[in-house]
Amino acid sequence: MADIAQESLDLHRAHKGKLEVASKVPVKDRAALSRVYTPGVGAVSTAIGEDKTRVWEYTMKGNMVAVVTDGSAILGLGNLGPEAALPVMEGKAVLFKELAGVDAFPLCLATQDPDEIVAAVKAIAPVFGGINLEDIAAPKCFDIEKRLQDALDIPVVHDDQHGTAMVVLAAFLNALKVKGAEAGAVRVVMNGAGAAGVAVAKMLLAAGVADLTICDSKGVIHAGREGLTDAKRELAARTNPRGITGTLADAVKGADVFVGVSVAGALSGDMVRTMRTDPIVFALANPTPEIMPDEAAAAGALIVATGRSDFPNQINNALGFPGIFRGALDHRVRRITDDMLTQAARNLAAVVETPDVEHIMPDIFDPKVVPAVADAIC
Amino acid sequence: MADIAQESLDLHRAHKGKLEVASKVPVKDRAALSRVYTPGVGAVSTAIGEDKTRVWEYTMKGNMVAVVTDGSAILGLGNLGPEAALPVMEGKAVLFKELAGVDAFPLCLATQDPDEIVAAVKAIAPVFGGINLEDIAAPKCFDIEKRLQDALDIPVVHDDQHGTAMVVLAAFLNALKVKGAEAGAVRVVMNGAGAAGVAVAKMLLAAGVADLTICDSKGVIHAGREGLTDAKRELAARTNPRGITGTLADAVKGADVFVGVSVAGALSGDMVRTMRTDPIVFALANPTPEIMPDEAAAAGALIVATGRSDFPNQINNALGFPGIFRGALDHRVRRITDDMLTQAARNLAAVVETPDVEHIMPDIFDPKVVPAVADAIC
Repeated sequence: MADIAQESLDLHRAHKGKLEVASKVPVKDRAALSRVYTPGVGAVSTAIGEDKTRVWEYTMKGNMVAVVTDGSAILGLGNLGPEAALPVMEGKAVLFKELAGVDAFPLCLATQDPDEIVAAVKAIAPVFGGINLEDIAAPKCFDIEKRLQDALDIPVVHDDQHGTAMVVLAAFLNALKVKGAEAGAVRVVMNGAGAAGVAVAKMLLAAGVADLTICDSKGVIHAGREGLTDAKRELAARTNPRGITGTLADAVKGADVFVGVSVAGALSGDMVRTMRTDPIVFALANPTPEIMPDEAAAAGALIVATGRSDFPNQINNALGFPGIFRGALDHRVRRITDDMLTQAARNLAAVVETPDVEHIMPDIFDPKVVPAVADAIC
Repeated sequence: MADIAQESLDLHRAHKGKLEVASKVPVKDRAALSRVYTPGVGAVSTAIGEDKTRVWEYTMKGNMVAVVTDGSAILGLGNLGPEAALPVMEGKAVLFKELAGVDAFPLCLATQDPDEIVAAVKAIAPVFGGINLEDIAAPKCFDIEKRLQDALDIPVVHDDQHGTAMVVLAAFLNALKVKGAEAGAVRVVMNGAGAAGVAVAKMLLAAGVADLTICDSKGVIHAGREGLTDAKRELAARTNPRGITGTLADAVKGADVFVGVSVAGALSGDMVRTMRTDPIVFALANPTPEIMPDEAAAAGALIVATGRSDFPNQINNALGFPGIFRGALDHRVRRITDDMLTQAARNLAAVVETPDVEHIMPDIFDPKVVPAVADAIC
């Protein structure tokens, strides 16, 4: 990790970041200039002025996504502000382009106030075909996303929620396939009820999971617990069918599947040993997972997945967002629904023809990934 | 013109606009991914989180300009809104990159309210090294620019004002050189007191013009006129030393220089005939100038300049903004002053070694232009 960190610092300094804005049309003489700029461009502006929908045909809008953050929840690093978020957002834009041909531009906002974030995104929306919200802290992220979805005629996706949930569901489906189990018959315990946790829970429920119990830093979420946020209260009503209370250790006893979207070290080998035979462990905290893969395997886990590229079974958002927006732009989708994302997860899972314990997810660079996901967003 | 219009429409449709966002770093495998994105990028975010000024070293910010408009005054077309403005702003971003290597991204705002424009630009400022305001109507453009200059630690330039003024001053200096006259000894009449007019007037005064009279659509601006805006009242106090009243026709009698930043056909050949011997005529209305060059020449004009590429002596902002922001970014300038712009005009004029009546301005593609202008912005 130390080497990668230094190499990453060196790369960013050498290139002054990672993104550039380039012309798709060479402009080397006055003839080209008169078509790209004045006077010719006046005809294009006039055409769009007469019919605004032509902006999709004649401008960059139809292939351009804004990657918007307030820097309040950067990776696992916390609230470091907009400047510190920029390298992550540039990286995300690089992946949009390299993996899916989507042009993406990072906007790191100088405000963390929800009303001001909503106002800023509404203001800049005309030049974009979609909005990818990123690394905005829970619970404000839920409200910001909903208000923007209601206000704008382009898709708005908080990727930490829905991109993560789609990719986790794909991994879950293939893990069950390897295990030979059905979604409705397994006990699932999830640790973490932030932006990702809430969305993953909803996707698992939509996919037919009947016995899902969710924990946060205060223990098991149940309807009788005091001080739940709105999002957690809603989840409490739809989960924990056996009325479990207590800690994560209480919840995982007898569970078939653990999904961690929480913090390093949250799951111990002893806790895995209390799960049912051949458990599935998704330890997705970054960069250090809830449990290291070797420890989980030693405790009897059949399948272990993490967010990391240096272990098997990497569950990474990069398997999701490029295809999600490729599909949304290609099909001019105004709102990305849970049904679309569930189908995208099924398509993504199906990219792996014969999943096994070390191969439940396709490689990020597998050229079948983006088309499979994009096909479902329509 | 009809051919250029159709070719421009065809080009914009074929390419879906003109801009793309590209990666400066190839990402074809997991090793590259881990340096450009997680986990390596975490070290870059942490470094910037510890010292925000590192955003200039490690990200795209140091070479990135926002081209911001509300679409309220697009070219000579008027208030067509943000979507119709996008082709122009994309074209401007193309020129930034092709001429000066500056990355520029267009933001066309879904609001024309000054407070909301200011709030939106402040919100998106962290990822940019400079703000180019464009095609925002007068008089609100003056207040918006000033408020943003006061609020932000990066340069904010309304190009319709200051870019235009810098380029017009360069042309004026070379035209005087050809004519063999001094700035302090000529009578100058300007028609147009919008964004460009106000800024051109201030630059001409700063360059030593002692006898400047300004007209708008209601005639000569003088201190006694009712209903002047703040900007025009300020100009009235500093211009019109001989207390002229009446119309443009009254003002141009006996003048040496006409500068039009107004509307097609505002100046007649008969009006040119009332000017002093060998007058200079800048007819900069786009796309149709205040007077056509052949008509001005027939009426005795020594030098005629327009904004168009199909006549000699093109006075075009593209000679200004690329170098202005190249210099501002390279020298990390926080505020671009009138002194810098005056020096930039002198440098730009000097690019033409031996100006003559048909060559007072360098070609936009002359590689000496951008460095000459950039050198002055420091």
